[in-house]
Amino acid sequence: MKITLIGGGKLGKQFYRKLVDIEEIELVQWMVRSSKTNLTSEGVPVVDQMKELMHSDLYLIAVPDKAIDSIAEALPIEAFVAHCSGGVSLDVLKQKRGGVFYPLQSFSEGRIIDFSTVTFVLEAKQVKDLTLLQQLANYFGAHHITIDSKQRAQLHLAAVIVNNFTNHLFTEAAALCEQNDLSFDLLKPLIQETVNKLEALSPKAAQTGPAVRNDQETITKHLKSIKNPKLKEIYQVVTSAIQQQS
Amino acid sequence: MKITLIGGGKLGKQFYRKLVDIEEIELVQWMVRSSKTNLTSEGVPVVDQMKELMHSDLYLIAVPDKAIDSIAEALPIEAFVAHCSGGVSLDVLKQKRGGVFYPLQSFSEGRIIDFSTVTFVLEAKQVKDLTLLQQLANYFGAHHITIDSKQRAQLHLAAVIVNNFTNHLFTEAAALCEQNDLSFDLLKPLIQETVNKLEALSPKAAQTGPAVRNDQETITKHLKSIKNPKLKEIYQVVTSAIQQQS
Repeated sequence: MKITLIGGGKLGKQFYRKLVDIEEIELVQWMVRSSKTNLTSEGVPVVDQMKELMHSDLYLIAVPDKAIDSIAEALPIEAFVAHCSGGVSLDVLKQKRGGVFYPLQSFSEGRIIDFSTVTFVLEAKQVKDLTLLQQLANYFGAHHITIDSKQRAQLHLAAVIVNNFTNHLFTEAAALCEQNDLSFDLLKPLIQETVNKLEALSPKAAQTGPAVRNDQETITKHLKSIKNPKLKEIYQVVTSAIQQQS
Repeated sequence: MKITLIGGGKLGKQFYRKLVDIEEIELVQWMVRSSKTNLTSEGVPVVDQMKELMHSDLYLIAVPDKAIDSIAEALPIEAFVAHCSGGVSLDVLKQKRGGVFYPLQSFSEGRIIDFSTVTFVLEAKQVKDLTLLQQLANYFGAHHITIDSKQRAQLHLAAVIVNNFTNHLFTEAAALCEQNDLSFDLLKPLIQETVNKLEALSPKAAQTGPAVRNDQETITKHLKSIKNPKLKEIYQVVTSAIQQQS
């Protein structure tokens, strides 16, 4: 399978690293805007202009959401083009052979993702192209599911909640620890147990703490002690949401 | 060390299970309100009245926060009494030999906690009693730290944030998955990676997603698609908090 990778950001880099390692794949070119090199150390040509792109079996667009449509428009209308976004509809691609190859994972600079733990969320306008994307997910050693753009948008929303929002709670807790001369490491076993519980219980059944047991005294004490107004808002909104659900 | 355990809830049960296993400890009695038995299968006397309690080296109070002071008041004034709460001040105990033995962990019915991953947060009015509590934490095979009531209250707040609030985000995400015919299992590798990142990065440095990259288009799409008003509030407040911090 001849693949052209477009994008040199966090996702593009992780894809590059994986794609050059897959025997069945020939990485034709890697397009990286403002690239300073013409060739990677693995011998893949690097280009920085869309017009330099040659023929390929699949153009994989791993760029920020808002850049997807302009990149796709600059590609041949008969090409097989797939974007890698959770929130962008398949319709954004004008090509008849449009597809989606969205890795349900969070990519941070400097971290190497083990793709065997990743599920690729697939969609394609044509069945044969879906088969190609499934094969590509297999080459990655990853899982895959096929859902429509509407479901994918909701899955992406859920991913933002469990990843970005959870991580923000960790950020707030880390700040509290720092302000009180406590190591954030103290909380890590508790964080891990919060996740481990999901193997045995639904998150709703696993809920504990002042909100779910309606311990108004502790809630009032906590709110009084919070100085950061944003954290206070988060505390109020989430506590009220837990209480409503219980 | 002779110990009397007071409380038959989630925490009391976990403590009971561990205490009967520790050779160096004689569990004198276990007080469980509305208990239906006089003796556990391990041979520990069970009582349901404070007045039935006999002498002990340490009375360990594992009851809801609001019951702590009345339980402590019913205990001998010269006794060594420790409560196990994150949010209750040491001063609530009138005994001169008051202490705190707070396990920084979340206890759910039916889950057996591995105490080697638990840190006990200790406090005592007298140094010799602190030493006893440190020894007890060692018997549990657990870690321990000693901090004051003010720090402990803030640590408890941080624990509520990373455990209860995070778990609520999981609950919201699970509901979204269910509403869209998606398995919540899909999100578990992402949840695990969110936690794994903490080993290498601060949560602030690990942040990704629409809020931190100011992707207003995705944020607007998400907000439009959220039907649950509580989730919409959470989305707005947390997104704004992430943006303020970045």
